[in-house]
Amino acid sequence: MTNATLLIVNCGSSSLKFALFDTTKGEFVADGIAQALGSKSANFSSNNAALDGHAETKQNVDIPHADHAQALSLCLKSLNETFDLEQSLVGVGHRVVHGGESFNSSIVINANVRKEIEKCSPLAPLHNPANLLGITLLEKRYPHLPQVAVFDTAYHQTMPQQAYRYAIPEKLYTELGVRRYGFHGTSHRYVAMATANSLAKPQTETSLICAHLGNGASVCAIANGESIDTSMGMTPLEGLVMGTRSGDIDPGVLPYLNNHGYSIDRIDKTLNKESGLLGLSNESNDMRTLTKLAENGHEGARLAIDVFCFRLAKYIAAMLVSIPNLDALVFTGGIGENSAHVRRQTSSHLKHLGFDLDTNANLENGDATQGVINTPSSRYKIMIIATDEERMIAQDTLNLITN
Amino acid sequence: MTNATLLIVNCGSSSLKFALFDTTKGEFVADGIAQALGSKSANFSSNNAALDGHAETKQNVDIPHADHAQALSLCLKSLNETFDLEQSLVGVGHRVVHGGESFNSSIVINANVRKEIEKCSPLAPLHNPANLLGITLLEKRYPHLPQVAVFDTAYHQTMPQQAYRYAIPEKLYTELGVRRYGFHGTSHRYVAMATANSLAKPQTETSLICAHLGNGASVCAIANGESIDTSMGMTPLEGLVMGTRSGDIDPGVLPYLNNHGYSIDRIDKTLNKESGLLGLSNESNDMRTLTKLAENGHEGARLAIDVFCFRLAKYIAAMLVSIPNLDALVFTGGIGENSAHVRRQTSSHLKHLGFDLDTNANLENGDATQGVINTPSSRYKIMIIATDEERMIAQDTLNLITN
Repeated sequence: MTNATLLIVNCGSSSLKFALFDTTKGEFVADGIAQALGSKSANFSSNNAALDGHAETKQNVDIPHADHAQALSLCLKSLNETFDLEQSLVGVGHRVVHGGESFNSSIVINANVRKEIEKCSPLAPLHNPANLLGITLLEKRYPHLPQVAVFDTAYHQTMPQQAYRYAIPEKLYTELGVRRYGFHGTSHRYVAMATANSLAKPQTETSLICAHLGNGASVCAIANGESIDTSMGMTPLEGLVMGTRSGDIDPGVLPYLNNHGYSIDRIDKTLNKESGLLGLSNESNDMRTLTKLAENGHEGARLAIDVFCFRLAKYIAAMLVSIPNLDALVFTGGIGENSAHVRRQTSSHLKHLGFDLDTNANLENGDATQGVINTPSSRYKIMIIATDEERMIAQDTLNLITN
Repeated sequence: MTNATLLIVNCGSSSLKFALFDTTKGEFVADGIAQALGSKSANFSSNNAALDGHAETKQNVDIPHADHAQALSLCLKSLNETFDLEQSLVGVGHRVVHGGESFNSSIVINANVRKEIEKCSPLAPLHNPANLLGITLLEKRYPHLPQVAVFDTAYHQTMPQQAYRYAIPEKLYTELGVRRYGFHGTSHRYVAMATANSLAKPQTETSLICAHLGNGASVCAIANGESIDTSMGMTPLEGLVMGTRSGDIDPGVLPYLNNHGYSIDRIDKTLNKESGLLGLSNESNDMRTLTKLAENGHEGARLAIDVFCFRLAKYIAAMLVSIPNLDALVFTGGIGENSAHVRRQTSSHLKHLGFDLDTNANLENGDATQGVINTPSSRYKIMIIATDEERMIAQDTLNLITN
C-alpha cells in the first residue's frame, strides 16, 4: 500500500518551489525548485529520497524559456519517478503571501476563496497573482484534489488595532487597506508551537518574542500563543535591516530622493533590492560573508552588522512592551539559527533588560542544550528553534482535508 | 544703568517669533510673534513686561501683506517702547533648524557659518532659508552685534553610527546626506541639564530618556549627558505619532499610494499635515480635545490616543537598549507636561519594565513632588520637567558672546 502524500507548492513570479510530504512517515520525501522561469536561464532541480526499490535521485536540468505550466509538469513527472502520485497524493498546500483582512487562518480553496485572494492582489502585486497561477495549474491537473491556502499574513490577524493601525488619515485604511499586516506568519506560528513543545507548556500559555532572521527578517511578539505585534508592515519592507531591504527609514527620505532625481520606481527598487546589509556594507547581503569580512577589518561589513544587531535589539525591547509574562526570546531562520555572532552582539545590547546569553551554548548553536542558550541566572530564556514553514503548511493542509 | 538684553529670534517661512532676555534678571521680559507674513491676514502681537516706570504693554495689530523685514521693524519698535535696545542689546540668538553634520554645537555667526547653514538648506528647504533671512535682517539692522546660531540638530551629533545610519546604499549617505540627524535637540539638551540639576548629579553622570511631546514629538536616549539615539530622523517626520505627522510608516506605503493616484507632493503633505492624531481620530490634532472626546466615547479619539501611547511606550523601551544605567524617564513639552492621561497610559505599558507610576503624583502633574511621579518602589524614576528652548538659546548666546 502506498503512503498518503501532500504536495506543498510555493509559486513565485518566476519560480516554482515544491516539496512532497509523506503523512505516514511525517516527513518530507522530495523537494525541488524551478527558477528563472520565462527566461533563457530557466532551470529545474529536484531531489527524491530513496523509497522501497528506488534509490535517491537528483535532477538538475536547464529548461530555457519554460513557463510555470511546463515547470509544474516537470515537477510532477520527476516526483512520479519515485512516488506514485495518482495513488498517494491526497492534497496540495499552497503558500499564499497576502491574505489581507480576509483570512485569519489557512483554508480549503474554493471559488470564493480564489476571489478573495484576487482581491488581496493589490497589496502583493508580485506575489498573489503568482500564487493564484499555481493554484490554477494544480486545479487543472487534479480537479478533484483538495487544495489549501496558507497565508503569510493570517497569523498576525490577532494583532490589536493599536499595533496594526498607522497614524494616517482613516480613509487610507478603510478605502485602500493601508495598515500593518505582518508577514512570516507561518514561520512565527511554527516557532510558537515548537517553543511551547520545547518548554512543555500549552501553546496558549506560552509567550515569546520570535526573531525570524533570514534574507527577510521580522520579529513577532507572541502572547499566549497569539501574534500581538510584529515589525513587518503593509509590505515586507518595514522593520528590521534585511539582506537587501532597508527596513525602517524616515518616510521623508522618499520625497527627498524624488526631489533629487530618483523616480518612485527607482526608490522602491533601491529600498527593496539594494539596501539592507548590502547597501550598508557596499559589499554583500550575506551575513556569513559579512561576518568574515568584519573579522578581517572591513569597515562596511562591521557597520552593516552593527546596525543590524542594534536595530534588532531595539525591536526586541519594543516588543517586550506587549508581553509582561515573557517566556523566551527565540532566534530562528538562517541567520537566527546559525550566526552565533549576531545572537551574541544582539544579546549584549539586551543584557541589562534580562537577557543573559551563555557564551558557550551560543557558540555551539545550542546543540548540546536543546536550543537553550541563556545562563541559569538570565531573567528570560533565550533559545534557538529551527523554523519549518513547509512542515507547517503540510500540517495545516492535512488538518483541513481530514476534518 | 540699563540691564543687558539678548534678542532670541525664530524666523519661519511665514512667521517671526521673538523674545527678549534680560541677562541680569535671568528672565524673559518680552515676547511676540508675527504670523501669516506675506498674506492678507498677517498679524503682529507682542507682550512687554512692566519695567521701572513702564507698565506692562500688549499689542495685537493686523499688518496685511507685511513681509519679514516689516515684521522685524515692528518687533524692534515694540520692544523699544519699554526697553532701550540701542543701550541694552548685547547679542542675538537664532534658532536654526538644520545644522547637518557641520555643527555639533551653537556657534557665533560669520560668513563661513552662513555658508554652511546654506549648504544644509536642502535638508530643511522650508526652514533654513527662513532662518538665514532672519539672520540677514538682524545683521543689516545691527551690523556690529554678535549673532549666534543654535541648531535643532546639533545636540544629536554625538549619536554613534549604528544609531544614525540607515540601511540604504552608502552613497545616499555620502553624496546626499541621507542619515538620522534628529531634532528637538535644544529641548532635549535643556531637559538633560534640568534633570541633572533636579537629581543633584553632574550632567555628565546623568542618563535619561527624554520624551518631548508637543505638536511635534520625539524621544531621545541621553547617556551621561549626551544624545546617543533619537526617534526623529533625516526630517522631523520619523518616529512617534504627532499632532498631524504620521511618524513611522512602512516605506512601501509611499510607492503603493503613488500607484493609487497620489502624487509624491500629495503624499508628503498627507503624511506631514493630515496624519498623526488628526488622521487617526478624523477629528483633531489636539490631545486635550481628543482626551475629552475619548472620555465621551469617541472611537477615533480613543484609537488615536491608544496608538500614540503604545508607540511612545515601544520607543521608550527601544531607547532603554542604549542606556544600561538609566536614571529617569522624563516627560516634557505641552503634552508631556500637562497630559496626566498620556503619561498614565504610556507608563502602564512599561510597568513590567521597571516604570511604576504614582497615580496621585501624576494627576497633580508632579506639582507637589518636584516633578517626580514614580512610586518609591519603581526601578526607574519618572519625572516631569518643563522644557524651555528659548532659555537654552539665550544661555548659549550669552556664553558664546562673553567667552
